[in-house]
Amino acid sequence: MSQTELDRQFAFLAEADKLKSVERANTLIDLSRRENSAEHSWHLALYALVLEGQAGEGVDISRVIRMLILHDLVEIDVGDVPLHSADGQAHDAPEIHAAEAAAARRLFGMLPASQGQAFLALWEEFEAAETPDAVFAKSLDRTQPLIQNLASDGIGWAEYGVTCQHIEDRVGARIARGMPAVWAELERRVRSFFNAVDP
Amino acid sequence: MSQTELDRQFAFLAEADKLKSVERANTLIDLSRRENSAEHSWHLALYALVLEGQAGEGVDISRVIRMLILHDLVEIDVGDVPLHSADGQAHDAPEIHAAEAAAARRLFGMLPASQGQAFLALWEEFEAAETPDAVFAKSLDRTQPLIQNLASDGIGWAEYGVTCQHIEDRVGARIARGMPAVWAELERRVRSFFNAVDP
Ligand SMILES: [Ca+2]
Repeated sequence: MSQTELDRQFAFLAEADKLKSVERANTLIDLSRRENSAEHSWHLALYALVLEGQAGEGVDISRVIRMLILHDLVEIDVGDVPLHSADGQAHDAPEIHAAEAAAARRLFGMLPASQGQAFLALWEEFEAAETPDAVFAKSLDRTQPLIQNLASDGIGWAEYGVTCQHIEDRVGARIARGMPAVWAELERRVRSFFNAVDP
Repeated sequence: MSQTELDRQFAFLAEADKLKSVERANTLIDLSRRENSAEHSWHLALYALVLEGQAGEGVDISRVIRMLILHDLVEIDVGDVPLHSADGQAHDAPEIHAAEAAAARRLFGMLPASQGQAFLALWEEFEAAETPDAVFAKSLDRTQPLIQNLASDGIGWAEYGVTCQHIEDRVGARIARGMPAVWAELERRVRSFFNAVDP
């Protein structure tokens, strides 16, 4: 029996269930456990809805939300690479990018062809971080873990030896690019957090 | 110091983190643990993207996705009420609806006023299940746990003593209303599942 479009879509949606088992570096705010990439993706979509007013000109929030829903699926094959692991070097390594691109082809390739191609193009746009939608989506992706860390006494930062300067470099620049007013406020909070820890 | 709009939005987004600790009746497909309501909400948003082609006339998928991102937040206060608990009676009990409405007012009330009102209206529209967008969103909300249950040998159904007839009544009617072709396919799969269990 040949697979119908619906069969392929159901198989993809069942495969996507595995994202709920991909563990991230940061925890829930109550420190009860680490966050997984599926609930993180939901939280980012909510961030996009709530912080819509911070988006720059030309940003289409509905496209941003679509990107955010899809952006971490590749971690089903590759896992989450923590931003601050290997002193900040692992996250942008070319071999990670290649593995993620292969994962995107495998996963979106499960779908009917034209739909899979559209999803792949949206994922590639997010990764390239050049269009206004992708820039905004990337800035949300940096903002959420920062707020989780601030709200949970920086436990996740301590684990990776993260300094205030690391955050300015690896997180702040990216947030500022998409949401300058949000970074202005968060930079104040981050500085006062690290001043309190190590005055 | 008076709270800025951003302060309120950050506080709401931190409060929303608690949805990741609300446990649902169904499990992940690999049976490793129960699903939580935050990752369930992400999965539903992905269902909406993937099954967009099944939506009836007049459905705006971007509004549907917004509804799905917000729809379970009230469970932070009320918890998830399993569809099949108390022989299917608990889910639509008036006292549950009243508690969820109070939770919606509390949670969306944390946001700047006009934004909170817009989110509340979207949540109420979903709950009322009358507009094309809400009908489609509700049918996705019934489809995802059904596919999880089918893919994990009906363990969740067995736990609640769910029969094929319960599924036709409590799940099928709702799915068929928003996505008739999807229900036609799932009804076939559900019947063949129950025939195999209890021929
Ligand atoms: Ca629910």
